[in-house]
Amino acid sequence: MAKDEIPDIVIGRLPIYLQALTYLAAEGREITSSQELGDRLGISSAQIRKDLSHFGEFGKQGTGYHIAFLRDKLREILHVDRVWEVVLVGAGYLGHAIANYGGFVGRGFKIVAVFDNDPAKIHQPLGQLVVQDVKDLPRAIQEHGWQIAVIAVPASAAQEVADILVQSGIRAILNYAPITLNVPPGIRVQNIDPVASLQRMTYYLCDP
Amino acid sequence: MAKDEIPDIVIGRLPIYLQALTYLAAEGREITSSQELGDRLGISSAQIRKDLSHFGEFGKQGTGYHIAFLRDKLREILHVDRVWEVVLVGAGYLGHAIANYGGFVGRGFKIVAVFDNDPAKIHQPLGQLVVQDVKDLPRAIQEHGWQIAVIAVPASAAQEVADILVQSGIRAILNYAPITLNVPPGIRVQNIDPVASLQRMTYYLCDP
Repeated sequence: MAKDEIPDIVIGRLPIYLQALTYLAAEGREITSSQELGDRLGISSAQIRKDLSHFGEFGKQGTGYHIAFLRDKLREILHVDRVWEVVLVGAGYLGHAIANYGGFVGRGFKIVAVFDNDPAKIHQPLGQLVVQDVKDLPRAIQEHGWQIAVIAVPASAAQEVADILVQSGIRAILNYAPITLNVPPGIRVQNIDPVASLQRMTYYLCDP
Repeated sequence: MAKDEIPDIVIGRLPIYLQALTYLAAEGREITSSQELGDRLGISSAQIRKDLSHFGEFGKQGTGYHIAFLRDKLREILHVDRVWEVVLVGAGYLGHAIANYGGFVGRGFKIVAVFDNDPAKIHQPLGQLVVQDVKDLPRAIQEHGWQIAVIAVPASAAQEVADILVQSGIRAILNYAPITLNVPPGIRVQNIDPVASLQRMTYYLCDP
């Protein structure tokens, strides 16, 4: 099946399924059902079965899904059965937080370099790394063949950084800046938008 | 219609629609279609029409959606036609980044207080705020009637903070720590998970 035939919104749910399966496996569980997964995730069991059916037959009527098997399959499908080197741009508060983030381990990603344009930050240590000059970013991307970058710069600088990243060969950008980046077709962008997550919760809240 | 009848995954898409409509309105546009919204967002037009139909009749066959009207309706539905006061716990790098985040303005939220347990941070300025002692957190939540909190503490401390928040009256938690929080029924939690966003992109990438 061609990659474009599966809606991106389905792909967007796979990491959520993968995380739930990883937790279930860590709890020592062996078998689960679309019903149980759905109850945990607030997604209908029919949706989960339909999403997974794009990629093959993973469960049997009446016996459910084998957790470790489905987890490993999803890792393969999402290409996170390996470790991707990720370049971070921005060594401010947010860059520090991302470089020190404990959630990357075992999930397919490692921050391997960090760049900034501030002379006061360049050459300074940041976690296990040393901040490099953003002037050297294009050459570093090309030399290392990095495909994934994280943008953690102010909104006013984010588009310029994105342009440099794309021109240098980056194919996927995780953007923390609160702006919509313009990128050419074929370049993937995901935005970290805490407000969307907050708005999803206020729906359920009443005024004090 | 009872709130529980609409799947949470539908609610989760409304902020995305709201953001797209806000951008369209800012571009000076007046009318859009489920097709155009879908193309922008990578969601099928049928899904968008179905999602919105839970809340009323917003578009007419052949004429599309009135952008400003639908935007305002979604703000009402999501309860972000007001400004919610949000309490931040954690004044490290991440807390600084969140307190200085430019994306809250005009979208329904304002960070009004920040707490930490580190004596070196307490009483220090953080953006427009001053870091307060986490010991005073329960009383402050009760006094101000805050319902929403952001957790920006290390993973090892996140559950303890969540327990304090819930016991003090917080109803909705935005969690940046890479752990799954245990909270009682009725308490909403959303996790900021950059890895899920990265995994959604690596699906489309090939090995170098």
